[in-house]
Amino acid sequence: MAKWSLPEPMAHALRLAEAAAATGEVPVGAVVVKDGQVIGEGHNAPRGTFDPTAHAEIVAIRAAAAALGRERLEGCDLWVTLEPCAMCAGAISHARIARLYYGASDPKGGAIEHGAKLFEQPQTLHRPEVYSGIGAGQATDLLTEFFRRRR
Amino acid sequence: MAKWSLPEPMAHALRLAEAAAATGEVPVGAVVVKDGQVIGEGHNAPRGTFDPTAHAEIVAIRAAAAALGRERLEGCDLWVTLEPCAMCAGAISHARIARLYYGASDPKGGAIEHGAKLFEQPQTLHRPEVYSGIGAGQATDLLTEFFRRRR
Repeated sequence: MAKWSLPEPMAHALRLAEAAAATGEVPVGAVVVKDGQVIGEGHNAPRGTFDPTAHAEIVAIRAAAAALGRERLEGCDLWVTLEPCAMCAGAISHARIARLYYGASDPKGGAIEHGAKLFEQPQTLHRPEVYSGIGAGQATDLLTEFFRRRR
Repeated sequence: MAKWSLPEPMAHALRLAEAAAATGEVPVGAVVVKDGQVIGEGHNAPRGTFDPTAHAEIVAIRAAAAALGRERLEGCDLWVTLEPCAMCAGAISHARIARLYYGASDPKGGAIEHGAKLFEQPQTLHRPEVYSGIGAGQATDLLTEFFRRRR
């Protein structure tokens, strides 16, 4: 059966999510792209790094900002396999990410289309363009398999 | 005129906020306290560290978790001079901070009593006890003076 291929940044983020699962971390991956190049990447890693803020998006954003040597990521895209939580949505706004692409929706923890809906808050000064659903099936499969094994 | 003294953790956080201002960063400081000891501290530093996530709370939480060698800060208190934003409120929840003490309210950027009111969202699984207003005057004075000089 033919399988539609994914945009490369989301395929990259999914590979990072798989790498997270291999180290016992919840499989979520993220990349920051500028002018077609990945300038920062990360996967969920709070357990291994003893860092409760080490969600994939935060790791990728910090890496990208360090690589550019500046605090803001204007003109950059963030690709992440799962709907960002409030912490990560806040970081995306602070970082001035231009476009957010995420895979699976997360009714329990997501804060884009669920919960705090952070980019709909009048208080949020910078909102990225948001595109969802790309790679959602693969992202969900990784999470489902991870939690099934841990049961 | 006599001045009431502040609890030492808030006085410590205010000194960190002053240190932030001295390096050109918005003056906000934070400490994590466990069993009466400061185990992590930080001040706002996104410009100097090229890190959009480097708010005082995030810096202090990451330092405390690294010091303890675990991803969660159960039983720990966070003292911060300004009402946390959504990013930091999310991190506080992820870190399982037991008690949050903050100084000044922040109608523009705060997400505790303003905006997303993150700890009032049904989705938020862990909510700390929250105490506000301690050191609010000093915290506000530092911020007002900082932005006045930059004008």
